[in-house]
Amino acid sequence: MKVRVLVENEPDRNPVYEVTPAHVRAAARRVPGVAGRLQLTYNDDPGAFHRLLKDAEVLLIGRNPGPGLAEAAPRLRWIQSMSAGVEKYLPHVPPGVRLTNASGVHGPKGGEYGMTAILMLNHRVPEYVQFQRERRWEQRWATTVAGKTVVVVGLGEIGAEVARLARRWGLRVLGVRRTARPHPAAHETYGPRDLARILPRADFLVAAAPATPDTRGLVGRRELDRLPPHAGVVNLGRAAVVDEAALCDKLRRGELRGAVLEVFDREPLPPDSPVWDVPNLVVSAHCGVDDAETYVPRCLDIFLDNARRYLARRPLRNLVDPALGY
Amino acid sequence: MKVRVLVENEPDRNPVYEVTPAHVRAAARRVPGVAGRLQLTYNDDPGAFHRLLKDAEVLLIGRNPGPGLAEAAPRLRWIQSMSAGVEKYLPHVPPGVRLTNASGVHGPKGGEYGMTAILMLNHRVPEYVQFQRERRWEQRWATTVAGKTVVVVGLGEIGAEVARLARRWGLRVLGVRRTARPHPAAHETYGPRDLARILPRADFLVAAAPATPDTRGLVGRRELDRLPPHAGVVNLGRAAVVDEAALCDKLRRGELRGAVLEVFDREPLPPDSPVWDVPNLVVSAHCGVDDAETYVPRCLDIFLDNARRYLARRPLRNLVDPALGY
Repeated sequence: MKVRVLVENEPDRNPVYEVTPAHVRAAARRVPGVAGRLQLTYNDDPGAFHRLLKDAEVLLIGRNPGPGLAEAAPRLRWIQSMSAGVEKYLPHVPPGVRLTNASGVHGPKGGEYGMTAILMLNHRVPEYVQFQRERRWEQRWATTVAGKTVVVVGLGEIGAEVARLARRWGLRVLGVRRTARPHPAAHETYGPRDLARILPRADFLVAAAPATPDTRGLVGRRELDRLPPHAGVVNLGRAAVVDEAALCDKLRRGELRGAVLEVFDREPLPPDSPVWDVPNLVVSAHCGVDDAETYVPRCLDIFLDNARRYLARRPLRNLVDPALGY
Repeated sequence: MKVRVLVENEPDRNPVYEVTPAHVRAAARRVPGVAGRLQLTYNDDPGAFHRLLKDAEVLLIGRNPGPGLAEAAPRLRWIQSMSAGVEKYLPHVPPGVRLTNASGVHGPKGGEYGMTAILMLNHRVPEYVQFQRERRWEQRWATTVAGKTVVVVGLGEIGAEVARLARRWGLRVLGVRRTARPHPAAHETYGPRDLARILPRADFLVAAAPATPDTRGLVGRRELDRLPPHAGVVNLGRAAVVDEAALCDKLRRGELRGAVLEVFDREPLPPDSPVWDVPNLVVSAHCGVDDAETYVPRCLDIFLDNARRYLARRPLRNLVDPALGY
């Protein structure tokens, strides 16, 4: 008997995120021996979601599945998310169902985008963008990035890749992670409670952490006030980790040199959001960490590897700990 | 007898470019044995320039010296420019006076800024900046930069450093230089006449060339039309090398993905310049290649090394060939 898998696509999302049978065939060549034991149903009709869940043992999904899974999916045993952050999934996972995330999918693209943001801040691009809006020719000098210090909050796949690239550019990397355990990509590693103490050393602060009970508001007004005024801030993890209002206040008052934000309290940012006009802030639209070509293939590599483990009753990769939230 | 040197500063320029006795003392520790044989006069009064030139054998200057040198400076033998590009000096250098430039001063900072611009274009930052101006939440996906191709026009200190960094990031580097001779930082090297032929391969085009009779208009409308529509353009050398009007036209028509310009036909850009509003264009103010901390020290290292050569009647470094213009 094949394992029944529901592949849930979104009807109006960009094709970058759509799982097709062609993707699965290609992934099966990279991770052989398991796709033949799965029976996949592809759906992109939200109205059919609960009906199709009735027989599903496994769910592959890239969005919050919403409430009602326990009733709609009595045979469900495992949900593979196509997202690394799963804070919105967690309240809806029925008891006894395992949730695995897509951590690792975003590493190369997200790390590169994070390093790009560090370089932009170093070369004062957010200020130039602001001057350009004001049609003002103003010169702002900078120095090369080597020898400066970056604090990276969160050493998951994205944060670790930012750290690796930053080291290659000669930056001093201070990592912050829940466990405070040393990490090969960081020169020094600290726990969340040390954050306020090390922030005065930061030329750059990069947040790349999941949204969990421990990380919400971790970079708050008090922490931002500890940064030197020439520092720049990047958030490419979850908006909840950085106090958006406090950061925007500080940028408006000129108390930070600039920021690059990829995630926001409210997404999409509405046209009348005051965030659009915050000086020295560069906004991107929550896809800077997603690689247009490799997103689905990398998700499917994790999924098929996990499916093999699932069939062999071995531990799953990227298993989310509901208590930690990632 | 000490050699008389006039150190000409500008009264209203940023201190980043000001040569002080403290700078010279520090440089003399790095390049010993020569400063004691020079008698330096510091001037920042343009009205006194010609009078002070009367006794000068050497001139250290960071701006176009203007006409009248032959009459004002009968003993002048050597001008050390604090600029790498000297196209504005050349018409004013009296016969028999040598001109040396500051090539090498801009390498590390300029190369880093050029690589930053490549990464910005790769991650579609100019488009995001444009969407932000329009208060529009639009997603634009990208892939990592490795495996893409950059054409670097000019393999002087800045261009070579851009090429080196681009190789480190896994880009394919096609260099374009007057001689077409191979360069260790480029995978392939071409002459200016090959440019139009190789441009269809470019994901990025970086211009880092001096303004000379050979380079003026080198990247014209015809060349820009050969770029694929997803390509991005960077100019951090001299404005005259890239047809600014043609580039802006193409950006307005959406025929290129974006551009980062550091140099302009008219500087400072006046408030009513149409360039400020060109879509998907990021403007910086002609100091992205200047390192705030090392600019004057590096100029003085070249100057003192050259002064030693001058006193020993050995060939000078960075000697400008008036026929080539650099």
